[in-house]
Amino acid sequence: MIRRGFQAVIRLGHHRVLPGAPHILPRLNRTSAFGSSTDSLVSRFCLEKTDLKDYALPNASWCPDMLNLYQEFLEKTKTDGWIKLPSFKSNRDHIQGLKLPFGLAATSDKSDWRIFTRCLQVEGQGYEYVIFFHPSKKKSICLFQPGPYLEGAPGFAHGGSLAAMMDETFSKTAYLAGEGLFTLSLNIRFKNLIPVGSLAVLNVDVEKIEDQKLYMSCIAQSRDQQRVYAKSSGVFLQLQLEEELSQ
Amino acid sequence: MIRRGFQAVIRLGHHRVLPGAPHILPRLNRTSAFGSSTDSLVSRFCLEKTDLKDYALPNASWCPDMLNLYQEFLEKTKTDGWIKLPSFKSNRDHIQGLKLPFGLAATSDKSDWRIFTRCLQVEGQGYEYVIFFHPSKKKSICLFQPGPYLEGAPGFAHGGSLAAMMDETFSKTAYLAGEGLFTLSLNIRFKNLIPVGSLAVLNVDVEKIEDQKLYMSCIAQSRDQQRVYAKSSGVFLQLQLEEELSQ
Repeated sequence: MIRRGFQAVIRLGHHRVLPGAPHILPRLNRTSAFGSSTDSLVSRFCLEKTDLKDYALPNASWCPDMLNLYQEFLEKTKTDGWIKLPSFKSNRDHIQGLKLPFGLAATSDKSDWRIFTRCLQVEGQGYEYVIFFHPSKKKSICLFQPGPYLEGAPGFAHGGSLAAMMDETFSKTAYLAGEGLFTLSLNIRFKNLIPVGSLAVLNVDVEKIEDQKLYMSCIAQSRDQQRVYAKSSGVFLQLQLEEELSQ
Repeated sequence: MIRRGFQAVIRLGHHRVLPGAPHILPRLNRTSAFGSSTDSLVSRFCLEKTDLKDYALPNASWCPDMLNLYQEFLEKTKTDGWIKLPSFKSNRDHIQGLKLPFGLAATSDKSDWRIFTRCLQVEGQGYEYVIFFHPSKKKSICLFQPGPYLEGAPGFAHGGSLAAMMDETFSKTAYLAGEGLFTLSLNIRFKNLIPVGSLAVLNVDVEKIEDQKLYMSCIAQSRDQQRVYAKSSGVFLQLQLEEELSQ
């Protein structure tokens, strides 16, 4: 069952008037907003000690390209300032102690939720991915291997599965780079199909942060960069999560 | 294992030069192309007699809004020219006897594929949806209820899950309305979050068919049309499937 309050979803950023009038956004204390440093966001997001399962770790389904590039970036976490992001089964685990602003809350009689990109539990069947984030460069790399349950045209990943992977990579990047919380827009140009079971590398950059919005770009391509699968841009709205009061 | 031929994916429509130069598309007999009528496409796509499971039928997880609107449109299939599209577990089932053009083929040692939007089998857990198509109006309605495994922000559907649902509804509409086969672009503006377990109604229109491309628009909203969840546009490339030669 869904509570009535669940329905009281604010209009995200009053989108229709956003471009010229960011001041009419939901009441927001602009002097105190977005004061959280990327470092503090990362350390809160990337719980070092936890019993939660991290789904962004190699398993037997990963193709050699994916494994090799994972190891390569893992090395860079020691020397080049990259961070491997953990990936729990729900965003609820990532934002423990925090909640969405403006009464955006949901309760239901189900206790079993999953973030969409971790909806399939059998290794290799659905989304296999890991995101590396570079705090000072404000960029991310996502290694993405679509499984046979993500199919569109026979043998190839569904365009929607790549769209979702881009949105998810944008989402984590936007949050850590500047408390980007909600997708305002997502524009994708598809160039080539991704064969099921192969690796696509998503390169995400934060282009600018302006008027309470993060502007990002993404290019998804083969490891050797010889084949571009798609290019996209995304805009996220900055909003601070609120501290959850203990009961 | 993936055959080498699997990798030989053509560049979709040579996208960079598409706008001004559709003549350089993969060799296509333009006089004979796209000669299939919508009626023949629909009758081939909507197998009337089949043992395949149709996933676009009501189940216990459907909310009252979804059930009611489903019944309403089912009535319209009798009088108003709407068609309820079946939804099989893979596009392979929908295009039996046909194959992708230009050697776009995939083989693997797995026999278990699923179209992305039917990747979760437990009723109510993932995608619940049904698409109604109107051949002469070239429009579709998709009733979409996201389950708890499609979550993004706690309690709400992941933006990527809606993006994929839009892409899939565009895809089926584009194919039946004019042999639109591949997504070239997808642009989405998000307005409000969709609560998990509630109904979103996607209205899709084919705006025009020009230069081998189908241009479509979509608005996703609550049943009472008081809340817009997102608006989008999609462009699909027209390409004919090829007859599969029996072995």
